[in-house]
Amino acid sequence: MYELGVVKQNIQRPDPADVAALAPYPVATVHEAMGRVGLMRPYMRPIYRGARICAPAVTVLLQPGDNWMLHVAAEQVQSGDVVVAGCVTESEDGFFGELLATSLRSRGAVGLVIDGGCRDTLELEEMDFPVFSRTINSKGTVKATLGSVNIPVVCANALINPGDVIVADHDGVVVVPREKVATVAAAAKAREDNEEAKRARFAAGELGLDIYDMRGKLADLGLKYVD
Amino acid sequence: MYELGVVKQNIQRPDPADVAALAPYPVATVHEAMGRVGLMRPYMRPIYRGARICAPAVTVLLQPGDNWMLHVAAEQVQSGDVVVAGCVTESEDGFFGELLATSLRSRGAVGLVIDGGCRDTLELEEMDFPVFSRTINSKGTVKATLGSVNIPVVCANALINPGDVIVADHDGVVVVPREKVATVAAAAKAREDNEEAKRARFAAGELGLDIYDMRGKLADLGLKYVD
Amino acid sequence: MYELGVVKQNIQRPDPADVAALAPYPVATVHEAMGRVGLMRPYMRPIYRGARICAPAVTVLLQPGDNWMLHVAAEQVQSGDVVVAGCVTESEDGFFGELLATSLRSRGAVGLVIDGGCRDTLELEEMDFPVFSRTINSKGTVKATLGSVNIPVVCANALINPGDVIVADHDGVVVVPREKVATVAAAAKAREDNEEAKRARFAAGELGLDIYDMRGKLADLGLKYVD
Amino acid sequence: MYELGVVKQNIQRPDPADVAALAPYPVATVHEAMGRVGLMRPYMRPIYRGARICAPAVTVLLQPGDNWMLHVAAEQVQSGDVVVAGCVTESEDGFFGELLATSLRSRGAVGLVIDGGCRDTLELEEMDFPVFSRTINSKGTVKATLGSVNIPVVCANALINPGDVIVADHDGVVVVPREKVATVAAAAKAREDNEEAKRARFAAGELGLDIYDMRGKLADLGLKYVD
Amino acid sequence: MYELGVVKQNIQRPDPADVAALAPYPVATVHEAMGRVGLMRPYMRPIYRGARICAPAVTVLLQPGDNWMLHVAAEQVQSGDVVVAGCVTESEDGFFGELLATSLRSRGAVGLVIDGGCRDTLELEEMDFPVFSRTINSKGTVKATLGSVNIPVVCANALINPGDVIVADHDGVVVVPREKVATVAAAAKAREDNEEAKRARFAAGELGLDIYDMRGKLADLGLKYVD
Amino acid sequence: MYELGVVKQNIQRPDPADVAALAPYPVATVHEAMGRVGLMRPYMRPIYRGARICAPAVTVLLQPGDNWMLHVAAEQVQSGDVVVAGCVTESEDGFFGELLATSLRSRGAVGLVIDGGCRDTLELEEMDFPVFSRTINSKGTVKATLGSVNIPVVCANALINPGDVIVADHDGVVVVPREKVATVAAAAKAREDNEEAKRARFAAGELGLDIYDMRGKLADLGLKYVD
Repeated sequence: MYELGVVKQNIQRPDPADVAALAPYPVATVHEAMGRVGLMRPYMRPIYRGARICAPAVTVLLQPGDNWMLHVAAEQVQSGDVVVAGCVTESEDGFFGELLATSLRSRGAVGLVIDGGCRDTLELEEMDFPVFSRTINSKGTVKATLGSVNIPVVCANALINPGDVIVADHDGVVVVPREKVATVAAAAKAREDNEEAKRARFAAGELGLDIYDMRGKLADLGLKYVD
Repeated sequence: MYELGVVKQNIQRPDPADVAALAPYPVATVHEAMGRVGLMRPYMRPIYRGARICAPAVTVLLQPGDNWMLHVAAEQVQSGDVVVAGCVTESEDGFFGELLATSLRSRGAVGLVIDGGCRDTLELEEMDFPVFSRTINSKGTVKATLGSVNIPVVCANALINPGDVIVADHDGVVVVPREKVATVAAAAKAREDNEEAKRARFAAGELGLDIYDMRGKLADLGLKYVD
Repeated sequence: MYELGVVKQNIQRPDPADVAALAPYPVATVHEAMGRVGLMRPYMRPIYRGARICAPAVTVLLQPGDNWMLHVAAEQVQSGDVVVAGCVTESEDGFFGELLATSLRSRGAVGLVIDGGCRDTLELEEMDFPVFSRTINSKGTVKATLGSVNIPVVCANALINPGDVIVADHDGVVVVPREKVATVAAAAKAREDNEEAKRARFAAGELGLDIYDMRGKLADLGLKYVD
Repeated sequence: MYELGVVKQNIQRPDPADVAALAPYPVATVHEAMGRVGLMRPYMRPIYRGARICAPAVTVLLQPGDNWMLHVAAEQVQSGDVVVAGCVTESEDGFFGELLATSLRSRGAVGLVIDGGCRDTLELEEMDFPVFSRTINSKGTVKATLGSVNIPVVCANALINPGDVIVADHDGVVVVPREKVATVAAAAKAREDNEEAKRARFAAGELGLDIYDMRGKLADLGLKYVD
Repeated sequence: MYELGVVKQNIQRPDPADVAALAPYPVATVHEAMGRVGLMRPYMRPIYRGARICAPAVTVLLQPGDNWMLHVAAEQVQSGDVVVAGCVTESEDGFFGELLATSLRSRGAVGLVIDGGCRDTLELEEMDFPVFSRTINSKGTVKATLGSVNIPVVCANALINPGDVIVADHDGVVVVPREKVATVAAAAKAREDNEEAKRARFAAGELGLDIYDMRGKLADLGLKYVD
Repeated sequence: MYELGVVKQNIQRPDPADVAALAPYPVATVHEAMGRVGLMRPYMRPIYRGARICAPAVTVLLQPGDNWMLHVAAEQVQSGDVVVAGCVTESEDGFFGELLATSLRSRGAVGLVIDGGCRDTLELEEMDFPVFSRTINSKGTVKATLGSVNIPVVCANALINPGDVIVADHDGVVVVPREKVATVAAAAKAREDNEEAKRARFAAGELGLDIYDMRGKLADLGLKYVD
């Protein structure tokens, strides 16, 4: 159960070198490298083409239609953080726009992931401040009810602990636990090295049927080739 | 209740100077300046990046899968108008394409807002004829049943009277009543001036907590800071 | 009923000259030229702006969350084909990415239409390998269960026989039966010639009411013009 | 544009005899009798089987997640009224439950139509207090922001003026303008009388092809009967 | 591609004894017995609890918002048939109500499956005329454009040939090809006999882990039991 | 991040007396008593009218289209438990039917909450085995990939730890942390006592405006009463 009205000020962040090691890899690769867990629902989309994030999370729990806690979170941001906001219930209002982005950026934040709506989307693109949201909506929000900052938060069906690393690109958003960042970065690298070799074989016209040695298993299962 | 089969030929339009005064402001600002009413549902999206409209509305009531009344409306368009089309029931067919856009543009229309589908979207982008629609759909429509032109119309859950001003951009679509255009433009300007000052403070690293003097109220509600 | 576990190796393809004759026409025109049948549901969207396909189909029947049959299909692809994949039940997993695209391209495929999810979308755009899908999703798939290749497949509510021609652009996806490609291309040309003439009249300010001679019929149905 | 913060105390209601004359007819018949206008979107559903309303509307404009105005509206209810609530933006919170139903009933209200969520649904069924809503949701609401009572309101894409009559049953919700209740009741009766005659012919095995004399028109359009 | 404007009068129906043999089995069992193909999308729902169909299909291709072909189909119905209607494009209008049900029943039809809307739902329940549809909607339809009867039709993403058997119950709708009805009935019986034995073991407290001998495979894959 | 391939055998359950104290209260009351946190998304619906659960959770993490872990979970069920299943990615397949319900019931389970599909729904109703699911779907699942049992799981956007208490009824599903069951039960009782008093006043015709003393605050905010 969420605890409301709490701001945790000291959170553990991953080693910046580990975050940097993870940064080159796309979401799909990271998700595979983690064993296919930690992916947010695919309704989370970047508000502009090319938006990309790899950063430790300051987490925020919002009330529907109320963006007050984003201001509270701004004070907790350190340089290089991403803000990740879940909501106690479904809300598509426009919680976030360019003024708050200006605030977050001046505090060092590198982006926002929010299970709600966003506005000022062209201005945010001009600022190149990446936002991943469930919708675009001009409807503003109030500042009236307490949520929390830096507690474990569910966002788009994924659980995020403060300090976990968020990787987000055009293919979606994935959460890497703080203590596994180095491991996942290494696994992502291994996977990409492996794919590089395969890519060359595919590009040369070799078939997956042969590269992955699938013909026997397909035949065993009864696949029939007919004219 | 909608009256079917009626074309109102003489509608009152707002003072063009007032429309021009409103034109620089984005939808999110206009919506706030109006007190947060008049916004269409967020499923209304521009068919291309950069589409933008600020213009008085010629309204159209469509039958599902039937675009006949758009041709009737074309005759009622004056230079600088936007056509706004609602539908008696939900329909996602492609009511509108580049031929009709050519017709509307030659009559002076500056765009279309339609609670239905649109096609020829790349051609419309090349023409730079802005359309805001609920979907993109190649399915064409028939010309068989009467709707109406220039009656009050509901579009994406907002009520539009002919002559009301539509402001539409990447964040959505908002309706400004004809008799409030000057007032809303002034309120939008005031809001933006106010935001300009705040933006500078945010950019300098000041927090919303201090700019908006929120700390006391948060403490009163019981917000706890913990380590 | 689908037959599972079958790969048909020899399919009839249309005359390449006919496919070439059809290629210039947009989806909306082709759909009209066919008498408004053969359109996939509008949830099928290109993964990048400018994606376009006109090619004969190699069909694939997938199991949910399982992309094995795409590898089987790769072997059946001939130069100039598009792969069209339906799924026995709804599945939004990421069946397809740039490795498989590399494989398909090296075998001659010119694109993919899939009633499921796609990933590596920016990489696919860089490759300019057009994909039309129902969603974007990083979630990978397994290789465990048999589907079929080159059987008649339902994709996004349209029926595709192997060798049918797929036309896909920013407005959607339409299926042209193999034996009608030449006829439809001719009808599309006729339609476009006809539209060219109308476009000039519309651009000159003539109204659809007059071009299509609608005023009498509207009056007969009781359309009233009021002040 | 909605005016916020207004409660209109004196509204005109239709003649109760006219409402009584309309009451026996189902929504589908009433909708046809009105010429197919005035229907709310089909996402509006009864919370229990057998819910049915035919009554003049007290209208309410809600803020998202805020049910304050329903309490304000309760004072304006007269015996036999239905409360109809729209919302300035989309909200699925649970605005209404059995306490408010107890209040509304004690003031004479016969039901609620709300473009939002409802809770206590089994209790409401036990009370036999009919509610038509867009969803069922336990999430409660606050009482913080002004809306309005008895202004024209858009609910599920239909426009309702205070005093208009709402007819709601298992097939949906339709709005009959106050000044047309008698006319529509008569048209509904005529339609039903007409259907009664047709029903007997259909039940006797006669075909619509013959009852409606369709064969000629179908043949003219080219319908072909093949073996 | 659909051929429009065609009514096939003579279709092959399955042996009534085979249909009777299939009738006792629920949709989930039939779907399994077929190897998990032929299921319609799960948005197809019965309009009332207890609705159930097992019958050969007369197929109908509808135009959106147009129910004309249902009248044409009525003439082709034989005693014991179900009418199955797809639509060339998505449409949620109310194509069907109790008058048409009266007509279909008098001709011998035992139900309807329609990828569109239905109205008069309580009346249809009173008649016990089972309908499976994508939505409930009072909006009526016109009779203006040709579709076809007894051609192969896609309905809710499944392909139905005239004479195929439809099995529909509270769990969904499945299509059994005409020539496989006897085989599938036998497979369904075998499956249910097998389940009967397992049901007894489960009811006695035995675990699936043991009944299906899963423990070894789970251990091989690395499942760890911890305290 | 989820750990895959783990079964925790010993979980702490709440005091049965506390669960019994909570059992009488409906979901809406419990949700309010918790301060409005812990609610699952409203797409979670009971498969039959009257389904109701109040029980400690055995949690399951599923792979999409794979119900293997439900069999593993069955062994961990103790009398009075509810099984709560989340899925690593979105999946609407039919993970659960009456055979598994027979197994779970024989082990003592009192119901299932699953962020996926369910089948055999009428049979489950006859058994009176309550299931809350996101959809009804006949499509079966495989037994191929490891998930986990009794780890913290996200289900319909709520976080559930094993041993937390699930309360589910016609209004939705809410999660009560194990260590707060007694507190929440007491708060629910207090809330209901308070509502009982208010209900009597509402039933007597008193207005919320007076019971909650709202008139002053409404006037302060500027609410205007007009004729």
